[in-house]
Amino acid sequence: MARNAFYAQSGGVTAVINASACGVIETARKHPDIIKNVYAGRNGIIGALTEDLIDTSKESDADIAALRHTPAGAFGSCRYKLKGLEDSRAEYERLIEVFKAHDIGYLFYNGGGDSQDTSHKVSQIGEKLGYPITCVGVPKTVDNDLPITDCCPGFGSVAKYVAVSIREAAFDVASMAKTSTKIFVMEVMGRHAGWIAAAGGLAAEKEGDAPHIILFPEVVFDQEKFLARVDATVKKFGYCAIVVSEGAQYADGTFLAEAGTRDSFGHAQLGGVAPVVAKMVQDALGYKYHWAVADYLQRAARHIASATDVEQAYALGKAAVELAISGKNAVMPTIVRTGENPYTWETGCANLADVANVEKMMPPEFISEDGYGITDACRAYLSPLIQGEDYPPFKDGLPQYVELKKVAVPKKLNKEFIVT
Amino acid sequence: MARNAFYAQSGGVTAVINASACGVIETARKHPDIIKNVYAGRNGIIGALTEDLIDTSKESDADIAALRHTPAGAFGSCRYKLKGLEDSRAEYERLIEVFKAHDIGYLFYNGGGDSQDTSHKVSQIGEKLGYPITCVGVPKTVDNDLPITDCCPGFGSVAKYVAVSIREAAFDVASMAKTSTKIFVMEVMGRHAGWIAAAGGLAAEKEGDAPHIILFPEVVFDQEKFLARVDATVKKFGYCAIVVSEGAQYADGTFLAEAGTRDSFGHAQLGGVAPVVAKMVQDALGYKYHWAVADYLQRAARHIASATDVEQAYALGKAAVELAISGKNAVMPTIVRTGENPYTWETGCANLADVANVEKMMPPEFISEDGYGITDACRAYLSPLIQGEDYPPFKDGLPQYVELKKVAVPKKLNKEFIVT
Repeated sequence: MARNAFYAQSGGVTAVINASACGVIETARKHPDIIKNVYAGRNGIIGALTEDLIDTSKESDADIAALRHTPAGAFGSCRYKLKGLEDSRAEYERLIEVFKAHDIGYLFYNGGGDSQDTSHKVSQIGEKLGYPITCVGVPKTVDNDLPITDCCPGFGSVAKYVAVSIREAAFDVASMAKTSTKIFVMEVMGRHAGWIAAAGGLAAEKEGDAPHIILFPEVVFDQEKFLARVDATVKKFGYCAIVVSEGAQYADGTFLAEAGTRDSFGHAQLGGVAPVVAKMVQDALGYKYHWAVADYLQRAARHIASATDVEQAYALGKAAVELAISGKNAVMPTIVRTGENPYTWETGCANLADVANVEKMMPPEFISEDGYGITDACRAYLSPLIQGEDYPPFKDGLPQYVELKKVAVPKKLNKEFIVT
Repeated sequence: MARNAFYAQSGGVTAVINASACGVIETARKHPDIIKNVYAGRNGIIGALTEDLIDTSKESDADIAALRHTPAGAFGSCRYKLKGLEDSRAEYERLIEVFKAHDIGYLFYNGGGDSQDTSHKVSQIGEKLGYPITCVGVPKTVDNDLPITDCCPGFGSVAKYVAVSIREAAFDVASMAKTSTKIFVMEVMGRHAGWIAAAGGLAAEKEGDAPHIILFPEVVFDQEKFLARVDATVKKFGYCAIVVSEGAQYADGTFLAEAGTRDSFGHAQLGGVAPVVAKMVQDALGYKYHWAVADYLQRAARHIASATDVEQAYALGKAAVELAISGKNAVMPTIVRTGENPYTWETGCANLADVANVEKMMPPEFISEDGYGITDACRAYLSPLIQGEDYPPFKDGLPQYVELKKVAVPKKLNKEFIVT
């Protein structure tokens, strides 16, 4: 007997999380005998708690297909972590109430580590609170820090954006260096792990190519050594292009970004780490600098998404539904690398219990000995993930991203629930 | 009798200045009876002064063709402005010496306002110092501030980058706004004129679309009014996306960027205007923010260049050579808009005397009455300039940009010239 599914997006969004949504909804639509309808949570799990459900059956096939090339979270995301059953019993009971009212038998939760933890906890309410629900996580994170899966949808596209951008900006700086800017610093995301910063290294294919220096959160920042390397690079190649992770830090754990200037009230300065690094170079070496902070641009840049990433994001959405249909519970589909040269992959399956709250760090052997670049092993791992372009359709010079109708499912409960 | 041509790139580079170089060199190669060889200045006019010339005949046809899809200045640019003949007689005499030694009869100078001024001055040395040379400027500037020409190559691609980026980032913020970021501020170039900021407005096609607020250098910043608008936008649409020009300023002419925090030594803070605006909103309204400073990324982003811009950049390089061949001197080819809906254009011709040192500002009627958006007239002007995509070739996930061999022309003079 067919039941409804609940789908929600969680945490920081990516250029391809909607491709996973597309995979979930399109696959569910092929199995109406098992999944009656997909209800999406408006703003993640909050939509379930507040009974704010979006009826995806009201969206046309064309609009659902367009999710594949639309960045960010079409249904809204949230930063909200469910606590354990003991601490948040009221929330779990409310979830069951809403799920029961809307005959929801499947939950697909699309997010990173925290979200997989939530999926895992919800999967337990079946046993613990007597409500049968099949829970399948759908991985997503630009940070690439989920365990077991070879990579995370969202990461490949940020990686491509970062590698393309530092290559382009470095061509610019190289042109200007004779009489003007000699230093370019580009700040990228990744507070805990240097995966995104490492991706910048893909732009450097031969000696002298940018980026000349990558500052990883994993490598303690040594100002003296860094400045010496910058100076040597400028003297040898005429300019120096630097990729710095927002998580770059000193030996005592202080972020470089925090160690910048302070305002007249003693507050840490507003800027990120890029201006701090740029100014440090100018103060010590006198070189003219420019810096960029891509921020959301990097994770929203669907126009330069990796085709591999888009395919994997879609495939994992599809696999999640197929796992649920095959009777699996408390699992998350994964990417399994099955071959190098040519790169091949397939989807696999991990238990949510093994995924929740485990952070995958960059292996030390991915960072070059001097701490400023990536190794061949790292390049071999990263390179396939940025392969291929998957351009969105354009009209009048602009990418055409879909905005869904987002028709609300009529509420069946007469109780408000305040999310705190 | 065929003579050589000198070509150089000047000022801040763009995503398409090499497309103009491609147009110049490919067209010159078709007229070997008139133009023997194109010598490029290494780092702009400095290459001429120091007799540091690049022999473009050593570059393959394929590599010259690849300039069309390669960003930045392939021969190196410079920020160096020749003074008047009276103040810099030694420099002009040196130029003649180098031109004479290398039989240079044509000068193509690819740059913005300052560079066209240089082209104009050099054109005068024919009469004043008795050296016959045909000088033709090739327009280039992301700032779109050259007069007479309908638009400037380089601008259309920055405009497209900015419109695409704010659209994408706004989708991201809209997803996050419920429980996290509600304010996104993107800083763009344009210290004197708001052309680039205005281009962000192209992303907003219907009510509620981002950007909700554009801060132009042309509109005096009114903090109270601005904050009220931000708050109203968040209350109505859930979030607020802002494009701010680096030149945004207070009534007294102080840049917002300068009015930010100061470090412990009293120096103005390192950051740009985006963090200042973001922090201002948070302090007053308490909304969580993110900000981005695209900096060089915006003008180097050849991967998302406007096809119209690329075509025009090439066409103006080609037209410059054709003007020279037809005997015109002291001129600059221009873009003439010949039709709207469908947009059509052709190349025209302006006298350098009319171009030099004239800055084209945004017409007041291009800015909406409230000062925070663009008018339909502005949209009608801007929209054609971002039309079409012209993707570079990719390999292994990365754009393939050409690096030329840059073989030096053997020096003929035994005199060093020190550029100060």
